[in-house]
Amino acid sequence: MKSLRTLKELEISEILELLEDARKFKNGMVYKLTDKVIANLFFEPSTRTQNSFNMAELKLDMKVINFNAAMSSLQKGETFYDTIKTFEAIGVDALVIRHSQDKYYEEISNIKVPIINAGDGVLSHPSQTLLDLFTIYEEFGKFEGLKVMIVGDIKHSRVAHENIDTMTRLGMKCCVSGALEFKEDCFNWKDFDEGLQEVDVVMMLRIQHERHNEKMQISISEYLEKYGLTHSRVKKMKPQAIIMHPAPFNRGVEIADNVAECEKSRIFKQIENGVFIRQAIIKRSLS
Amino acid sequence: MKSLRTLKELEISEILELLEDARKFKNGMVYKLTDKVIANLFFEPSTRTQNSFNMAELKLDMKVINFNAAMSSLQKGETFYDTIKTFEAIGVDALVIRHSQDKYYEEISNIKVPIINAGDGVLSHPSQTLLDLFTIYEEFGKFEGLKVMIVGDIKHSRVAHENIDTMTRLGMKCCVSGALEFKEDCFNWKDFDEGLQEVDVVMMLRIQHERHNEKMQISISEYLEKYGLTHSRVKKMKPQAIIMHPAPFNRGVEIADNVAECEKSRIFKQIENGVFIRQAIIKRSLS
Amino acid sequence: MKSLRTLKELEISEILELLEDARKFKNGMVYKLTDKVIANLFFEPSTRTQNSFNMAELKLDMKVINFNAAMSSLQKGETFYDTIKTFEAIGVDALVIRHSQDKYYEEISNIKVPIINAGDGVLSHPSQTLLDLFTIYEEFGKFEGLKVMIVGDIKHSRVAHENIDTMTRLGMKCCVSGALEFKEDCFNWKDFDEGLQEVDVVMMLRIQHERHNEKMQISISEYLEKYGLTHSRVKKMKPQAIIMHPAPFNRGVEIADNVAECEKSRIFKQIENGVFIRQAIIKRSLS
Repeated sequence: MKSLRTLKELEISEILELLEDARKFKNGMVYKLTDKVIANLFFEPSTRTQNSFNMAELKLDMKVINFNAAMSSLQKGETFYDTIKTFEAIGVDALVIRHSQDKYYEEISNIKVPIINAGDGVLSHPSQTLLDLFTIYEEFGKFEGLKVMIVGDIKHSRVAHENIDTMTRLGMKCCVSGALEFKEDCFNWKDFDEGLQEVDVVMMLRIQHERHNEKMQISISEYLEKYGLTHSRVKKMKPQAIIMHPAPFNRGVEIADNVAECEKSRIFKQIENGVFIRQAIIKRSLS
Repeated sequence: MKSLRTLKELEISEILELLEDARKFKNGMVYKLTDKVIANLFFEPSTRTQNSFNMAELKLDMKVINFNAAMSSLQKGETFYDTIKTFEAIGVDALVIRHSQDKYYEEISNIKVPIINAGDGVLSHPSQTLLDLFTIYEEFGKFEGLKVMIVGDIKHSRVAHENIDTMTRLGMKCCVSGALEFKEDCFNWKDFDEGLQEVDVVMMLRIQHERHNEKMQISISEYLEKYGLTHSRVKKMKPQAIIMHPAPFNRGVEIADNVAECEKSRIFKQIENGVFIRQAIIKRSLS
Repeated sequence: MKSLRTLKELEISEILELLEDARKFKNGMVYKLTDKVIANLFFEPSTRTQNSFNMAELKLDMKVINFNAAMSSLQKGETFYDTIKTFEAIGVDALVIRHSQDKYYEEISNIKVPIINAGDGVLSHPSQTLLDLFTIYEEFGKFEGLKVMIVGDIKHSRVAHENIDTMTRLGMKCCVSGALEFKEDCFNWKDFDEGLQEVDVVMMLRIQHERHNEKMQISISEYLEKYGLTHSRVKKMKPQAIIMHPAPFNRGVEIADNVAECEKSRIFKQIENGVFIRQAIIKRSLS
C-alpha cells in the first residue's frame, strides 16, 4: 500500500515511473482493479480533479463511493479524523482526499488505507503537478533545461508550490511573475513581459478570490492588462512555447478569453492527460 | 454521435424509431453499453428525470458520473461552457444536461460529445415529450386524430412547448386551458370544463411557483376549484380518456389528491415508461 | 420481498439468521445481486450508515443510485410519498431510507418495493441494533444474561429505543443512565458510576445537539465529568467489559478523547461489522 501525499516524498525515478505508466494508459493499456472500492472525499469544491479521479477509477473498473460532505455527519460535528477512520473501518481499499488544511494527512497518519492527496491547503496537489509534467514531456520530450514561468497568485496556489519544487528537481528552470504584492513570496521573480519571451512554458494561475482576505486593489480589466495573458503577450512568446493553466481559469482576468483555447494553449490537453495520470497513481497505490 | 437537443430537429420517422426502441426495452430487450461512461449534469433540481436517466444508464450497464454542482468549481466562478469542456476533455462518452437557460446547447455547440437534453429553460424537454407520446401510444395504439388538452401554467412549461409542437406534427389535436393570465400565450385556448368532455388526454401541468416572479393572485383552494382537476371534473371526462402530468405535481393545487392515483391517471405509468424512453435515447446517441 | 422496518416485526429466529449471515459475510461468503438496482435515500445527514450501506451494496455487486435530496424535486415542493412512489415507478429493486419522521414507512405502506429502514425519527435503526448485537455476540459468544448499560441522551436516540427492546427479547439485562433530565424517560435508570462496575457492555450515546430544543444547562467539560466516559471511569469497568457507541461521537463530551480508541473500545469494530450486517439485510430483502 502506497499513499501519495506530496511528490517531495517520491524519488525522481518513482515520478518518472508514474509518467511512464500514464503514457501507457494513454496508449490504451488495460489494467483492471475490479472489486476494489475507492472513496472520493472532497471537502472543497472541485470539478476537474474530482471528476477526473472518478473517470480514472471507472476506467480501472473500480467500485466508487463519492462522499457527500453536505449530507454527512460533519453536519453533526464529527471530526475530519473520525470521518476518515470510518471509511477505513468500512473497508475501502483507497481514499482520494481534498481538504483545505495544509498537510491534513499528518492528522490521519495512523490510517492503514492508502491516501491519495487530491490537494491539501496551499501546499501540494501531486496529481496536478504530475499531469503538468506529463503534458510538458509530451510536448518537448524532455525536462532538462526547459524554462517555465509561473504567473499569478503564487502565494495561494498549491499547484505553484508543488510544481516549482518538482520541476526544479527534474532540471527545469522555474521563475515566477505576477502582481508586485506577490513578489515577496517568490524565489525567482521576473518581469512578466520580459520573461515570457524566454520561456518554453507559461503557466498561468487562477486568481483565487476565495482565498483572499482583502479585496484586490485593482480592477479586473487592469489586472488583465498588467498581469494577464493577453493576445499581444502571446505573440511575444517563442514559437514552440506553450501555455498552461491548472484551471478553473477566469476568462478575461488572468487569461484573455481568446487565449484560453488558442493554438499555444494546452489547457484542455492537461485535463485530458489528468485522467491517465490518475489511473497511474491509483495503480501504484493498489498494486 | 447523435445529440438530442429538441424534437424539432428530428424527423417523424426518427421519433417513431425511438418509441419503437422504448417498446422493445419495455419488452425486455437487452442492450449493453458496458465500459461507456456517461455523465449527468443537472444544474437544476430534478427527481424523476435525473434518477430515471440514472436507472436507464445502469440498465444499459454503463458507468455513471453524477456531477454535483454544489461541490464543483462553479462555486469558484467557472462558467457553464468550461464545465462542459472539462467533461469533454475527461473523455466521457455522452452528457445528460439540464440547465435553466433556453437553448443552453447552442453555447456548447463545439463540444464533440453527444448532448442529451434533459430540459432547457422553458423550451424543450425531449425525453419527457417522448415518454408522454409512448404512454399515449400504449393507451390508444395511434396518434392521428387524438385530442389532448394541456392545462395550467403553459407559459412556464418546457413540457407544454415541446409537447404541443410534436403532438401536432404527429396528427394530434392540441388545445390548452388554464388561468386567464396564461391565455395570451396559448394558441388554442379552451374553457377547461368544456374541453375536458371532448378530449382523450387531459395533461395537467404543475404550477411552477419557483418560476413566477409575482405571487399568484388566487388562493390554492380557489385555484383547485377553478383550474384544477377535481374528482367532479374527472367524472365529466370521456370513458376511455386518461389523465397525465409530467410531475412533480402539487396535490390539492392543480390536481386533487384523490385524482392523482385514480383509475384514469397514468402519472406513475409515465414515470415507469420514462426509463425505457431514456434507454432508447442513449442507445441512439451512442450507437 | 421483505422490508426491514423495525426489529419488533421480526421473530427472534429471523434476527439470529441475519446475524448468522453477517458472520458468513465476514468470513468471506460471496453472494452476488448483480443487475439489481438499489437506491439510497437519506433525508438526514449520515456518514456511517449511508456509506456502509453503499459499501455493502457494492460488495454484493449491485447497481446503486444515491438520491441527492438537495438537488431533487423536494425543492419544488414534492412530497416524501411521491418521491418514494417515483422510485418505485422507476423500477428499483430495493430502497434504503432514512427520514426524520417516526414510522415514515407507514405513509408509504402501499409501495411494492422492499424498504430497508436506515433510521426513522427517534424510534428505530434496525441495522444499527443488529450490528451492535453482532459485535456483542462476537465478543461474548452469547446474549443470555449479559448486562448492558446505555448511557446518555436516551430520549432522542433511535438506537437506544430499538436496542433496549431487542436486547431484552434476547435475554440481555438493560439499564440506562445519563443526565437526570433524561431520567423520566428511562425504564430502568441506574447511577452511572455504580452501574458501570456491574455491566458487560457500556454503550455511550451521542448528545444530539441538533435534536435539542433548548440549550443544555451544563458546560461540556462538566458534562464529561458528570455523565461522560472518562478514563477513570473506564478503570472501574469489569476486565472483560467493552465500550460501544453508535457514533458519530463527540470526543471530550460524552466520551473522553483517549477512551474512544482505547483497548476496551469496540467503536470502530462496530463500524466494520455494519457492512456485513447490511449485506445480510439486503440479501434477506432480495432473495
